[in-house]
Amino acid sequence: MKHSSFLAQQFAFLEEADRLKNILRATPIHDDSRPENSGEHSWHVALYAMVLAGHAAPEVRIDRVIKMLLLHDLVEIDAGDTPIHGDFDAAEQEAKEKLAADRIFGLLPAAQALEFRALWDEFEAAETPDAIFGKSIDRVQPLALNMASGGGSWREYNVTLDQIDARVGTKVARGAPTVWTYIRARVEHFFVTQD
Amino acid sequence: MKHSSFLAQQFAFLEEADRLKNILRATPIHDDSRPENSGEHSWHVALYAMVLAGHAAPEVRIDRVIKMLLLHDLVEIDAGDTPIHGDFDAAEQEAKEKLAADRIFGLLPAAQALEFRALWDEFEAAETPDAIFGKSIDRVQPLALNMASGGGSWREYNVTLDQIDARVGTKVARGAPTVWTYIRARVEHFFVTQD
Ligand SMILES: [Ca+2]
Repeated sequence: MKHSSFLAQQFAFLEEADRLKNILRATPIHDDSRPENSGEHSWHVALYAMVLAGHAAPEVRIDRVIKMLLLHDLVEIDAGDTPIHGDFDAAEQEAKEKLAADRIFGLLPAAQALEFRALWDEFEAAETPDAIFGKSIDRVQPLALNMASGGGSWREYNVTLDQIDARVGTKVARGAPTVWTYIRARVEHFFVTQD
Repeated sequence: MKHSSFLAQQFAFLEEADRLKNILRATPIHDDSRPENSGEHSWHVALYAMVLAGHAAPEVRIDRVIKMLLLHDLVEIDAGDTPIHGDFDAAEQEAKEKLAADRIFGLLPAAQALEFRALWDEFEAAETPDAIFGKSIDRVQPLALNMASGGGSWREYNVTLDQIDARVGTKVARGAPTVWTYIRARVEHFFVTQD
């Protein structure tokens, strides 16, 4: 393939990716001024991974985790965000996200499309140490934002501490147990002092 | 240091970082609906680096470049963004950014503060292959956004193609010459068809 058409495919992907900045999440940013979008969320969780790398299992390769987190939400361009505390049909959402991955990663040159898709599939499967740590990180960041913004998506969805333990805690504790112990204490304190 | 106070410092940094989502840049997002913020910009340029890694010099370590790009704009929380086509006092801005780096990286546990500060200093100095490639990537992304949005910050600042060559082209070509050749042709075509 000619150099210029290779680059044209890479830029088609990178320019399409900009649409992730228009996908809004249930969590507000820290000052509660507006919802967080999935583009800035992807930056923030990659930074979380970089900072919290020392709390991962020793076999975790943080560079791969960061790449997974940079890619993990791109499918939302077609499939939308599904708030963890909201109602959605998991099987239907999974099918939508697979179609989105086909289309969006398919914009890239073939070898890179395969490489990125494999990282996304690995993250979604949540079976390897890298994916398990990445999923923990993705679940931790909204806890801090919800506390900073005075309740955020917990308030909107009337979420209880037991629901956070069940929906979020199990996943965070699986990949980053020391981080969960730390943030769980803060979340409990937040709930006690809000009531 | 106790585990919990170590994590408290890491979270103080990560929660402070959220303020980067409120720093607005001169470049609009693709649909010209609003200015891009520096948090989502940081995600987008990290993704650019990941996609365009094959166009870097062979000695470039892309994982370090991605980390630099995730950190590179954090100083704007205190020092603000300085549009490349706008007027500003470079020495004064540099002094502000160094103070910002002291404060913001200083929130982290000591060893991590040093590690992150060293990455940021290396990026700013633009002397190592990793920093040179990272700087190229940071300059390429706004070109695509300005074209997508119909002119963006070029229109706002009445920028000419010669000014783009001088202010942006030299820096992009230094770290990613094949990428510059490709995007330069698109930018020229954009200017010709706009006139
Ligand atoms: Ca998500």
